[in-house]
Amino acid sequence: MPDPIGNRQWILVRRPRGPLAPEDFAWREGPVPEPGPGEVLSRTLYLSIDPANRAWMSPVATYTRPVEVGGVMDGFTLAEVVRSNDPAFRPGDVVEGMNGWQDYKVARGAELSRVERREPLSHRLSLTGITGRTAYFGLLEIGRPRPGETVLVSAAAGATGSVAAQLARIAGCRVIGIAGSTEKCRWLVAELGLDGALDHHDPELRRRLAELCPRGVDVYFDNVGGGLLETVLFHMNLFGRVVCCGVVSQYDTATPAPGPRGVPGLLVVKRLRMEGFVVMDFDARRAEAEARLARFAEEGRLRVPEQIVEGLERAPEALIGVLHGRNLGKCMVRVAPGIR
Amino acid sequence: MPDPIGNRQWILVRRPRGPLAPEDFAWREGPVPEPGPGEVLSRTLYLSIDPANRAWMSPVATYTRPVEVGGVMDGFTLAEVVRSNDPAFRPGDVVEGMNGWQDYKVARGAELSRVERREPLSHRLSLTGITGRTAYFGLLEIGRPRPGETVLVSAAAGATGSVAAQLARIAGCRVIGIAGSTEKCRWLVAELGLDGALDHHDPELRRRLAELCPRGVDVYFDNVGGGLLETVLFHMNLFGRVVCCGVVSQYDTATPAPGPRGVPGLLVVKRLRMEGFVVMDFDARRAEAEARLARFAEEGRLRVPEQIVEGLERAPEALIGVLHGRNLGKCMVRVAPGIR
Repeated sequence: MPDPIGNRQWILVRRPRGPLAPEDFAWREGPVPEPGPGEVLSRTLYLSIDPANRAWMSPVATYTRPVEVGGVMDGFTLAEVVRSNDPAFRPGDVVEGMNGWQDYKVARGAELSRVERREPLSHRLSLTGITGRTAYFGLLEIGRPRPGETVLVSAAAGATGSVAAQLARIAGCRVIGIAGSTEKCRWLVAELGLDGALDHHDPELRRRLAELCPRGVDVYFDNVGGGLLETVLFHMNLFGRVVCCGVVSQYDTATPAPGPRGVPGLLVVKRLRMEGFVVMDFDARRAEAEARLARFAEEGRLRVPEQIVEGLERAPEALIGVLHGRNLGKCMVRVAPGIR
Repeated sequence: MPDPIGNRQWILVRRPRGPLAPEDFAWREGPVPEPGPGEVLSRTLYLSIDPANRAWMSPVATYTRPVEVGGVMDGFTLAEVVRSNDPAFRPGDVVEGMNGWQDYKVARGAELSRVERREPLSHRLSLTGITGRTAYFGLLEIGRPRPGETVLVSAAAGATGSVAAQLARIAGCRVIGIAGSTEKCRWLVAELGLDGALDHHDPELRRRLAELCPRGVDVYFDNVGGGLLETVLFHMNLFGRVVCCGVVSQYDTATPAPGPRGVPGLLVVKRLRMEGFVVMDFDARRAEAEARLARFAEEGRLRVPEQIVEGLERAPEALIGVLHGRNLGKCMVRVAPGIR
C-alpha cells in the first residue's frame, strides 16, 4: 500500500450540542510525526466506529478522559508499526491502540498491544476486538445466562449486540433481539438465528415483548438505556440480571431521558442485579475471550457482520450513521486503502 | 398473662391513596379461631412494624401478595403456640410467623418457625429478626464491604439501617449514616459509633456528603430510593455496590419519584452493581446470621435500639409513625401485655 504523503486528521472543533453534525469536525493535513526515545510510530489500518465515541465527546469524563476540543478525535484502531524505538515492537507488527481519527500516531509501547496478523484483519476490531470482547465478558460474566433462560438484547443488530445475542444462543438460551427497523429484525432472525426480534419503534412494544418472552426475561443485555430499559425492567423475572453495557439512546442527545421508574423498587421486589462494566476490566482474560470467539466463528456458529466504510474522509459520516442506527454489525473505516 | 376474651383485629378497610391514615383501618373483635387437622393456633406476643408493611398495602404484588381489603392487616409476628394439631409444635413454643395485626391466628406448621425462648424476646424481631437478618445479608452478601472502604447507609436510624451501619463498622469500614433529623444524626454518632451522619433535609446535602465521604462511597446500603439515591450514585466510587434493600421514600406516596438519573449511564462508567434482595432468599443461612448477630450484641459491639409501642390498639399509629421516620431502631407493638 502506498504511504500517504502526510498525516491526515479529523479534529474535534466544538463539543456537539445535541445530535452530532459533520460541522463538529474539521479536516487537517500535517507532517508525519517522529517517534522519540522508547516511542513507536504506527500507521492506522482500520478505525473502529463505536457509539461510545460520541460519549467521549461530552465534557464529562467517562471511563476515559473527554476528547479535547481542537485535538484529534479519539478512536480505537488497528495499526501497523512503521518505526519503533521500543525493542518490543518492530516495523510490520500489527497493533491495537488508540490512534484516533488520523493516519499516523506516535505512542508509547505501553499504549499498544500487538496482535497476530491474520486475515481478515477486520476481525481484530469486530469479532475479537473491543466490541466482541465486550459482548463476551458482558454476557458471560455479568449476565451469566443458563441454558433455557430467556436473554433479551437491545441494539442487537449493532457490533456488540450482534455478538452478545449469538453467544446467548450458543449458551443454549432463548434469544430475542431488539433493533430499530423491521429489516434489521428480519436479519436478526434469518441471519443470526435468533428466536425472535422486535422493533423498538413498534407502538405495541410492550405487548410484543410479552408475546416474544412469554416466560419473562432472565438476562437483559442493555446497550441502549432510556425508556426501553424501563419497559424491560417491568418484564424481568425474579433474580434477573441487567447487563449495563452502554446507553446508546442517550449519547447523541441534549435532552437525556429521566432514570427508569422501577429503580430501585423493582430491583428489591424481583431481586434484580443491574451491573455495569467496561471491557478493559477483563483484559487479564483477553486471550481466553479471543480464542473462544475465534473458534465459534471458525466453526460457523458465530457470524461476524461488518460494515466497512472506505476512507478516513468518511469517518464523521460513519459515526453519525452508527448513532442513527444505520449499521448492521461492526462499523469501521478502512483507513489504509486495500488492506484486508 | 391473661388471655384476651376474643380475637382483636385491625382490618384494612381501603387501600390508602397517598399517606397512610388511621381511617384506612377498622378495629374488629371476634371469636378465637379453632385449629383444624395439622394446624396450629398461636397468640401474638409482638407485632413487627416495618415500612415494607405499607408497600404490601398497594394493589401491586411485591415479594408477597397484597393485603386484601376487608382482611386482617399483615405483619410479621412473634407468637406463642396455644394449641397444636401439628406434632412439630407444642403449646408454649415461641414461633415466628405472619399472624398479622391480631391476637390469634391459625396457621399451618410450615408457615411458622420455632425460635428459642430467650429474653428479651423482642430481640427476636429486632436483632435476629427480619430486619436484623436483612441488614446482615444485605450488607455482607450484596454489599461485600472490605476493611477501609466507605459505607453509606440511608435510614440509618431505622431498624435495618441501624444494624447495617453497625455491621459495617464492625467490618472495619468508615461508616456514614443518613437520617431525618439532627437529633437522629447525633444519636448515630454518639450511640452507634458511626464516623459521621447527615440529615437528608440538609439543603447542602450534596456538599456535606462530599465532606463526610472525601474518598467517595464504596457501598451504599439503600433503604430509601428516590432523589437521595440519585445524589449518592454521582458520589459512588469505581466498582461501588448499591444494596437495594427498600424504598421507604416511595411506599407512602401517591406521586412516586422518577427513576434516578445516572441509571444506567453511571453504572457503566463507574462499573457499579445495584442489586436487590429479600431476606427470605437467605433462609438457608439463617442460623449463621442469628448466631453472629447475637454474639456481636453479647460482646457489646452491636447496640440493639428498639421502640416498643404498648398495645395492639396502637398498631396503626405505630406504622404511621415509622413511615414518618419517628422511630429510633426497631419499632414493634407489644400485643401481649407484660411480655418481655
